[in-house]
Amino acid sequence: MSLPSWILASHKIEKLVLNWLEEDIPSFDYGAQAVGDKWTTATLYAKSQGVLAGKPFFDAIFQHLGCTVQWEESFDDGRCLDPYFVSSSGVENGLGGLLTLARIQGPACNILRGERTALNVLARCSGIATRAFGLSRLAQQHDWNGRIAGTRKTTPGFRLVEKYAMLVGGVDTHRMDLSSMVMLKDNHIWSCGSIAQAIQQAQRVAGFSLKIEVECQSFSDACQAAENGADVVMLDNMSATQAKQVANALRQLYPHIWIECSGGIREDNIVDYFSPDIDIVSLSLSQHCDVVDFSLKVDAGSRNSIGAKE
Amino acid sequence: MSLPSWILASHKIEKLVLNWLEEDIPSFDYGAQAVGDKWTTATLYAKSQGVLAGKPFFDAIFQHLGCTVQWEESFDDGRCLDPYFVSSSGVENGLGGLLTLARIQGPACNILRGERTALNVLARCSGIATRAFGLSRLAQQHDWNGRIAGTRKTTPGFRLVEKYAMLVGGVDTHRMDLSSMVMLKDNHIWSCGSIAQAIQQAQRVAGFSLKIEVECQSFSDACQAAENGADVVMLDNMSATQAKQVANALRQLYPHIWIECSGGIREDNIVDYFSPDIDIVSLSLSQHCDVVDFSLKVDAGSRNSIGAKE
Amino acid sequence: MSLPSWILASHKIEKLVLNWLEEDIPSFDYGAQAVGDKWTTATLYAKSQGVLAGKPFFDAIFQHLGCTVQWEESFDDGRCLDPYFVSSSGVENGLGGLLTLARIQGPACNILRGERTALNVLARCSGIATRAFGLSRLAQQHDWNGRIAGTRKTTPGFRLVEKYAMLVGGVDTHRMDLSSMVMLKDNHIWSCGSIAQAIQQAQRVAGFSLKIEVECQSFSDACQAAENGADVVMLDNMSATQAKQVANALRQLYPHIWIECSGGIREDNIVDYFSPDIDIVSLSLSQHCDVVDFSLKVDAGSRNSIGAKE
Amino acid sequence: MSLPSWILASHKIEKLVLNWLEEDIPSFDYGAQAVGDKWTTATLYAKSQGVLAGKPFFDAIFQHLGCTVQWEESFDDGRCLDPYFVSSSGVENGLGGLLTLARIQGPACNILRGERTALNVLARCSGIATRAFGLSRLAQQHDWNGRIAGTRKTTPGFRLVEKYAMLVGGVDTHRMDLSSMVMLKDNHIWSCGSIAQAIQQAQRVAGFSLKIEVECQSFSDACQAAENGADVVMLDNMSATQAKQVANALRQLYPHIWIECSGGIREDNIVDYFSPDIDIVSLSLSQHCDVVDFSLKVDAGSRNSIGAKE
Amino acid sequence: MSLPSWILASHKIEKLVLNWLEEDIPSFDYGAQAVGDKWTTATLYAKSQGVLAGKPFFDAIFQHLGCTVQWEESFDDGRCLDPYFVSSSGVENGLGGLLTLARIQGPACNILRGERTALNVLARCSGIATRAFGLSRLAQQHDWNGRIAGTRKTTPGFRLVEKYAMLVGGVDTHRMDLSSMVMLKDNHIWSCGSIAQAIQQAQRVAGFSLKIEVECQSFSDACQAAENGADVVMLDNMSATQAKQVANALRQLYPHIWIECSGGIREDNIVDYFSPDIDIVSLSLSQHCDVVDFSLKVDAGSRNSIGAKE
Amino acid sequence: MSLPSWILASHKIEKLVLNWLEEDIPSFDYGAQAVGDKWTTATLYAKSQGVLAGKPFFDAIFQHLGCTVQWEESFDDGRCLDPYFVSSSGVENGLGGLLTLARIQGPACNILRGERTALNVLARCSGIATRAFGLSRLAQQHDWNGRIAGTRKTTPGFRLVEKYAMLVGGVDTHRMDLSSMVMLKDNHIWSCGSIAQAIQQAQRVAGFSLKIEVECQSFSDACQAAENGADVVMLDNMSATQAKQVANALRQLYPHIWIECSGGIREDNIVDYFSPDIDIVSLSLSQHCDVVDFSLKVDAGSRNSIGAKE
Repeated sequence: MSLPSWILASHKIEKLVLNWLEEDIPSFDYGAQAVGDKWTTATLYAKSQGVLAGKPFFDAIFQHLGCTVQWEESFDDGRCLDPYFVSSSGVENGLGGLLTLARIQGPACNILRGERTALNVLARCSGIATRAFGLSRLAQQHDWNGRIAGTRKTTPGFRLVEKYAMLVGGVDTHRMDLSSMVMLKDNHIWSCGSIAQAIQQAQRVAGFSLKIEVECQSFSDACQAAENGADVVMLDNMSATQAKQVANALRQLYPHIWIECSGGIREDNIVDYFSPDIDIVSLSLSQHCDVVDFSLKVDAGSRNSIGAKE
Repeated sequence: MSLPSWILASHKIEKLVLNWLEEDIPSFDYGAQAVGDKWTTATLYAKSQGVLAGKPFFDAIFQHLGCTVQWEESFDDGRCLDPYFVSSSGVENGLGGLLTLARIQGPACNILRGERTALNVLARCSGIATRAFGLSRLAQQHDWNGRIAGTRKTTPGFRLVEKYAMLVGGVDTHRMDLSSMVMLKDNHIWSCGSIAQAIQQAQRVAGFSLKIEVECQSFSDACQAAENGADVVMLDNMSATQAKQVANALRQLYPHIWIECSGGIREDNIVDYFSPDIDIVSLSLSQHCDVVDFSLKVDAGSRNSIGAKE
Repeated sequence: MSLPSWILASHKIEKLVLNWLEEDIPSFDYGAQAVGDKWTTATLYAKSQGVLAGKPFFDAIFQHLGCTVQWEESFDDGRCLDPYFVSSSGVENGLGGLLTLARIQGPACNILRGERTALNVLARCSGIATRAFGLSRLAQQHDWNGRIAGTRKTTPGFRLVEKYAMLVGGVDTHRMDLSSMVMLKDNHIWSCGSIAQAIQQAQRVAGFSLKIEVECQSFSDACQAAENGADVVMLDNMSATQAKQVANALRQLYPHIWIECSGGIREDNIVDYFSPDIDIVSLSLSQHCDVVDFSLKVDAGSRNSIGAKE
Repeated sequence: MSLPSWILASHKIEKLVLNWLEEDIPSFDYGAQAVGDKWTTATLYAKSQGVLAGKPFFDAIFQHLGCTVQWEESFDDGRCLDPYFVSSSGVENGLGGLLTLARIQGPACNILRGERTALNVLARCSGIATRAFGLSRLAQQHDWNGRIAGTRKTTPGFRLVEKYAMLVGGVDTHRMDLSSMVMLKDNHIWSCGSIAQAIQQAQRVAGFSLKIEVECQSFSDACQAAENGADVVMLDNMSATQAKQVANALRQLYPHIWIECSGGIREDNIVDYFSPDIDIVSLSLSQHCDVVDFSLKVDAGSRNSIGAKE
Repeated sequence: MSLPSWILASHKIEKLVLNWLEEDIPSFDYGAQAVGDKWTTATLYAKSQGVLAGKPFFDAIFQHLGCTVQWEESFDDGRCLDPYFVSSSGVENGLGGLLTLARIQGPACNILRGERTALNVLARCSGIATRAFGLSRLAQQHDWNGRIAGTRKTTPGFRLVEKYAMLVGGVDTHRMDLSSMVMLKDNHIWSCGSIAQAIQQAQRVAGFSLKIEVECQSFSDACQAAENGADVVMLDNMSATQAKQVANALRQLYPHIWIECSGGIREDNIVDYFSPDIDIVSLSLSQHCDVVDFSLKVDAGSRNSIGAKE
Repeated sequence: MSLPSWILASHKIEKLVLNWLEEDIPSFDYGAQAVGDKWTTATLYAKSQGVLAGKPFFDAIFQHLGCTVQWEESFDDGRCLDPYFVSSSGVENGLGGLLTLARIQGPACNILRGERTALNVLARCSGIATRAFGLSRLAQQHDWNGRIAGTRKTTPGFRLVEKYAMLVGGVDTHRMDLSSMVMLKDNHIWSCGSIAQAIQQAQRVAGFSLKIEVECQSFSDACQAAENGADVVMLDNMSATQAKQVANALRQLYPHIWIECSGGIREDNIVDYFSPDIDIVSLSLSQHCDVVDFSLKVDAGSRNSIGAKE
């Protein structure tokens, strides 16, 4: 199986890790004084259901802190976690219904230093992957061959993690940023004067290597976009009925154009957009998104004997 | 009225803004080519209910881009937004039920360059402030004089915005990071051996200027913490009934100790913890949190006349 | 006329400017002591022929240093400079055959502090634009409607300037980086096992918003690429004769595929590749590239009177 | 033999490497998905003649990416490469006339991630070293004992590499930046009022540890400079005949002054300046400079067997 | 024994180390050329009395440079150094009255590259620890149980090292920065209008997790502060007699308030403030502070044999 | 009069200012809440004697914070401050014997935000300038025409300020860093094998633009250095008597060599080294150095009226 983590370059992860640790430890880490640097083992548990995602970030945080992370076999990003029905899967169930995922080893002060940041990343990344997975499974269940895609409505500074989570969950990231696929939205078109002109101007700089997508409010807009060289047309804020109608008409006329629907699409109405004439349905996956719950506990064997007596 | 935005130093905001723009525009901004640098006015609208929060970040993004932001009078952070019942408040309702919040002026390419990032921050910041406000109003309605507080379960790299949103919503930020108030949690105490030793070690470095909080699993833990110099005891994962019982007993014995409850507290059970013996109730405010919906549109007067003809 | 400079976001330029000034002034600027901060005017001259490019960088350097730059009317990036035949164009010829381009005003120490860096950028940027312009004119002269494109063979750390220069000169930038259009080269295909598999793997992460290009050594390779979903095929290191033959055959079979030729193409043989079946011809534009010569001189009026007497 | 690479501190190289990788991979590296992280060996070949330079940068890029580089024995920076006449030197000739230089080992995705950046540095660095070596050999052939030197006309942000290349090629770097040797040029002297005053002002801050050089337009200028404490006089834009005349006169009067010629000196006239009275001849070595051609190919043994079957 | 170095997170140290090396080696390290990269051993000696402090920084500098540091047993931060009476302590006395502390091994150029920076840190850090230790011993000798504390009057950019040195010397760091304990000084109170209002405003944002200290000019000020919720009152610039009088009166009225004295306190009058009613006495420890003298010498065995002959 | 502040480039100052503010305000500035953003005037006073130095840094801190600084006329860096005898100089004496230096205007929260950092810089910078000035006046009083110089024994990260302070005080900075003048010390020479070889190696990379200094333990060392091309010889740790003897002998033999004495030189014995044969006497100026005392107070007119009533 292919791991999307291959697309994560180490310099990107390291920069994020440094940024996160600096945020959480701007000067001294006072709590570290209570625990010292005794070599310690701790365990990562899953406490709620979901799809695991974020291992490369979790690992990099502890690696930066001089700790090693050993994951249970078969727990790669993308794996479904179900902490309460563990026996059937044969995986050891560590602590009263919790699912054991990994063991972290290192100096006690460093394990606890990275704990909160590492869990925060894992919880959010897995939360988005879980939501993405649910949506992509929904598409499968309806035998829809199009793509569900995210948007740029991500948490500023945290997009790489959130887009990675979408890939883990089987959803298309959509463009990463303004330096990727050109997207001409209503504001662009109003400022420029017409769809035709906006596309023409964008082509001057985008060249052959970037696609151009145009946000369209109507069938007429979409035709203009298609005729002027758009690679993708986005039907904006249309009802499912309207969108399917417009998409079908476009498909007849411009079979090579990708057709995306966006705006007002939610878990509870997305199925209505699953049409063979619609190639992409997009919605923000990192807003309104639950997290998956994890916890990290120092192993009994690493606890101080005085503590054990308590 | 006092504005919590005074606590935001410009170097912190600027660093975030640069980071966010770099994320969204790693090389060229191709869409800018379609709009040029014509001087343009755009309007910020609220599209859903909530508490406004995040103006200092929104403003800084556009200031960095050479644009000015003019807010409608009385729209400061903390203001409740109700886009669909605007007439009663006397504020002009700009666009079909939307609430006009601010006007942005600057070169068209720069307004559109900042749009998505600025909206992303505003949406998340206001979402957290809205949730915080709801909780703090709940406490007021129940005449509870304690404090609702957040946790460190924030989005890595985005904590300053999220903690600021809590303040806007009337909620206590709790400690910012590991360099603030010392918190000795289960892992710390296990690693160290006993609550007494953990506090003693931490005091060596924390000195008189930092408080020390201890996470306690039982009344006995809490007594140990109080007797060994803890400023705050946190009753971890106790039911409301149990927590109130333990808190009442502690209050009798150690009247100067702050008592916090945390773990397993949600919107639907928080009221049960509103007791005069409990000073702080904490829960993560930035997980599972909705956003407030905003949009930004280029004004009709700034649209290209060719476009107007469309 | 549309200016490609709109695609340059200020945070990108400022970061480069800071980096460049830090490189040239790691601690004190001793020479500044000799000139002081007297308000001074200096003039920028062109000393050799070429296409002007790099104004946004030049301006940003001096703006950072508290200086203003006033360009002669009509001197935008893309303008052809011909210092030795100035009279015919009606532009004032400043200094013995030199062409006056702009006046810089500011404290003497700051003008001289930025001089070398600003000229270095302008010289290289204009040099690449000049070369690009020559090639794009060649295509026009041969009525070829394809695109000449650059490559990623740019100077590390200086790519934004070099790619911008290509746009000014009328050449396609090709993809900016590994996060743009996916390009599967020989090494990728060897590592993966087959063109079909490489494309399939890449599609998993690239999604609908990125194009995929495949480097092909043969007609057979190109057919595999086209049939497996490549958007662009690149005919690698083929002679013009062979390339045109292969391209023609591909065009018949896969009319929607873009066809690029690359490898071994130089100024002296590029014309041979100008075929209606070839859409893109790419070569490195920033290797082996001449610079345009500029100089900056403090105006006579700003020179110290003692000096004038010399 | 002494290696100039000793003067490269690791923090300088690492900062550049991070900067370069960030430039080439601003978000995801999509191509990596096609190749995975299989342990792979690739070979670096030289494809054109020249002087090898840039190994410390090449190595640091791959080291950052978790790869190792094993160079063929005797291939240190400064070594002359001659790919087409390899047999006589006894070095194995890897691939049809190409010269095998090094083997890189690591995860396939990481080798390909660094490939282009590493080759770009090596090509430019070796190109400058080659040109420098050619000039320094020319001086030797003419039994001239002076020094050929570069200038500050380098690519912004890339100077460390370019100056290092000059050292490898046997040429003097001249001053690195404005914080090194003080150089008082025409603009400085005009702004200050006189050579005497400019030197006096500069000496106040430069102290005994920095040399002072003065750009002189005439013999009279040079005498003023020498009498007022200049360590080096630079004869600016003089013909070889004039320069030698002036230099000879200066040598008689001020035997301890270093004499440099600069301005208008090229490969085709530099020999004319080789005079015993001229100590330094300087010209820009990184403008108008060819690159040396290298390539990197995944070894047959590391190619996927499916691919081998193609 | 507990080591305060546990509170130093590696990302903080690494950032400082990079900053320091960049300061000392902005481009090439020319001296490195003279020594090469021969594997070398050097010894760190103490040359004056004092308390050792700064090992984590010293070690990190050499670790960054690829060198290892092996300290003599028992030489941890906090150890008293007495180079001239070594025999009694049984530690080997390396070089004519000097005290051998550690052996550094690595490439010669890297050892010398880090030498000056590493010694500068160690000398300053130990100097402050020595002064802190002297003061804390003074308190012990006078059986005073209060705390001597530093201030924020530290060297900009070097505070982490200086505060760490205070901890090593047994002194309280006082608050680290403006994001730690809130301190309302005269300027705050003047700007706000009254102590009561200033505290009330600060409490809105500081929450329960931060203490609030108020600078008081009089007994009346201190009472206002105590009654309005201050955790600490600071008696500003009072004579010892006055301070003790005020503190005693406060203690009677507000037994839970911490009482600090600051302003005009020096080594020669601090004893006068040692009163049971005064909890904290603060003064700047990093101004007017001597350094401890260290030196680092390449071992005889690592010296070049030619040199040995000299 | 010439101001050494001209040599300070703004990007260097800004980077330091950002670094310093980040250190002092890692997250929120809670105290700011108590003072708000009312437009406020504050005054900077000198409280102890000394030489003023550090204005460019002080100004830049407040400029970054949106405040303006208006200095009293004639108070430039280098001015002697004498707060207790102000009347004779005609400068207004602001507050009970204090000397008024400048007025700062801006939002109250921003003035107080910068206060401590700005005073810390000014105090240390002026302290070093004061010490430097004392030494340079001593040289004048003894009619010695040599130079007193600092060393690289500066506070890591703060060198630019400290070296600038030396210039203000009239002392030579000596080399800034390892990328400036080459200095071959005992460790270099031991590692290399001989003075002759060390110089020869260094010359290969240093070129003509850098001086080379050699640390010499004896007259014989100094002769070797001089004969092999050293520009400066440093007589290390010699008594004044010995140093003068050796210097005199060297002067006879090598009249063009600069002669420096260093090691064991303090305020109380420096006069003994003032000899016509000794050109430079160097010692660390930033170790063991007092600060000058400044304070900043909000003006009465800017205080809140409620506060005025207190």
